[in-house]
Amino acid sequence: MHTFDFLLNKFQVSLSKENLDFSPDEIYKPISYTLSIGGKRLRPVLALMACDLFGGNIEDVIYPAIGIEVFHNFTLLHDDIMDKAPIRRGKPSVYKKWNTNIAILSGDTMFALAYKFICKAQISDLRNILDIFNNTAIEVCEGQQFDLNYETQKNVSINDYIKMIHLKTAVLIGASLKTGASIAGAPEEELEKIYNFGANLGIAFQLRDDILDVFGNETEFGKKTGGDIITNKKTFLYLKAFELAQGDDLISLTNCFTDKNIDDSTKVKSVIDIYNSLNVKDLAEKEINNYSQKAFYHLDSIIIDNDKKQFLRDIAKKLMVRKY
Amino acid sequence: MHTFDFLLNKFQVSLSKENLDFSPDEIYKPISYTLSIGGKRLRPVLALMACDLFGGNIEDVIYPAIGIEVFHNFTLLHDDIMDKAPIRRGKPSVYKKWNTNIAILSGDTMFALAYKFICKAQISDLRNILDIFNNTAIEVCEGQQFDLNYETQKNVSINDYIKMIHLKTAVLIGASLKTGASIAGAPEEELEKIYNFGANLGIAFQLRDDILDVFGNETEFGKKTGGDIITNKKTFLYLKAFELAQGDDLISLTNCFTDKNIDDSTKVKSVIDIYNSLNVKDLAEKEINNYSQKAFYHLDSIIIDNDKKQFLRDIAKKLMVRKY
Repeated sequence: MHTFDFLLNKFQVSLSKENLDFSPDEIYKPISYTLSIGGKRLRPVLALMACDLFGGNIEDVIYPAIGIEVFHNFTLLHDDIMDKAPIRRGKPSVYKKWNTNIAILSGDTMFALAYKFICKAQISDLRNILDIFNNTAIEVCEGQQFDLNYETQKNVSINDYIKMIHLKTAVLIGASLKTGASIAGAPEEELEKIYNFGANLGIAFQLRDDILDVFGNETEFGKKTGGDIITNKKTFLYLKAFELAQGDDLISLTNCFTDKNIDDSTKVKSVIDIYNSLNVKDLAEKEINNYSQKAFYHLDSIIIDNDKKQFLRDIAKKLMVRKY
Repeated sequence: MHTFDFLLNKFQVSLSKENLDFSPDEIYKPISYTLSIGGKRLRPVLALMACDLFGGNIEDVIYPAIGIEVFHNFTLLHDDIMDKAPIRRGKPSVYKKWNTNIAILSGDTMFALAYKFICKAQISDLRNILDIFNNTAIEVCEGQQFDLNYETQKNVSINDYIKMIHLKTAVLIGASLKTGASIAGAPEEELEKIYNFGANLGIAFQLRDDILDVFGNETEFGKKTGGDIITNKKTFLYLKAFELAQGDDLISLTNCFTDKNIDDSTKVKSVIDIYNSLNVKDLAEKEINNYSQKAFYHLDSIIIDNDKKQFLRDIAKKLMVRKY
């Protein structure tokens, strides 16, 4: 069994060997830029770890893992256009650095490239991993649309929100693990278990993101906090606060999110005060714990030596309490 | 051997049976809308014809053909955003009817759906047709970027233009035929021949489009002519005219394409007068004939009963002289 850091390094070395310096520059420079900025590389490393868990050859997963990472970065590229997000990982997003057309088209090319990498898998794995990937890609698009819808939709429930982050974030984490396990030849029931482990982990992961966006330490988190509050994003914290707020808290919360004249820092401070008084951070932590337990339940149920699961358990725990 | 019309009908019936009525509406209504408006269905029918030519089972090509058509429509959806084209096939384009975000995301979903359909091919065909499709999808994106670049780039040569339409339009026509032939089990040399037939046909097809956009009969063509002139599009006619124009013609042509105060109908009329005096339409016809000859050379070289090629020859001839 290999550690996360070993597999991360292996992935980074493999990715860096891929030449994407083609013509026209307007397509390929944004692609290289996006892939070079980094990110956690969580999905591809989980794919490698799942293969390792089931005793597969991790070499067989490298290209599909690159495909998954390229796909993930493609979605960020298009999401940033739709969400008007000027910054990604501390750098200008592609549509800001270049323009919207270039972001659309280099994104489209990344999507095709993602498939090209995935199709470098062994022929015997091709159908299975493409079935996983096709369905997941569609779900991720659906999740992003629900996210966009919720910007203007009233009466978004916490269930709606969980369903949305399941599609937008969690399924790709489940699919990454399932892809690695599938290439290792794991049986169908085990594939479902590792997928469910990842999907529940993914929801906990996104809920942690929601908390960090409000309560994170900016130095550790690596970006300005309060962004979700400023953009009225209907996160778990937002929805829970509206569910619980009464009287003055409710009036004040509503004012914060509707008053167009309120300045950003006052808004963030006021909302955090209400979040604190309603204890929504603890409730989100409870929810993270809840989804973590579900994730671990599925991991535990996988029929394989318990100590082999330790690396996955460790990384899952790390993700739950991460500060960045 | 089946006729174009028989295969077209077969394709339409198969496509109409596909249920794409999923949630969220913001993704799936634009997809159904786009696919229901129609178009020539040239690419999927060519895929079926190529399979038929090589004695394959056309049933095996139906899903990949749907995938190719869905992909083609996805590219139109994103191109219309980038080209700011409000009308497609006589109806509002998706980004106009809904909005840009919806057009980006329903387009992305169509791209994933295209792969999902393609992956319904027999497992023995999967790698070959995905190799064709992945490379073609990337080339189509590259072609669109060159097209965007040429809007502002000076000194675009006719060679540059042909290279661009090769990528943007011709390769997908070649790939459609190659996909059908590959599923029929045609040998590698024959696959290259049918691909080259399609790619040359595709260039002739696009040059015909350039002519129709200027000289077409609006009733037959189904849309207003002169669009390329109004938007200063560097088509074969434009580039050839600038190559040939001298003295007053050159001054007048330059004025037409740089004077921002000239009204559209005067501009179109003046440019057509110069095109006529320089005979560029005949030169474009000559070029169409040239690429048609190349296409037929490759078709002729395919080692198969000559009379079996007749349907493909007929449809190619029709496309060359089409008025819409």
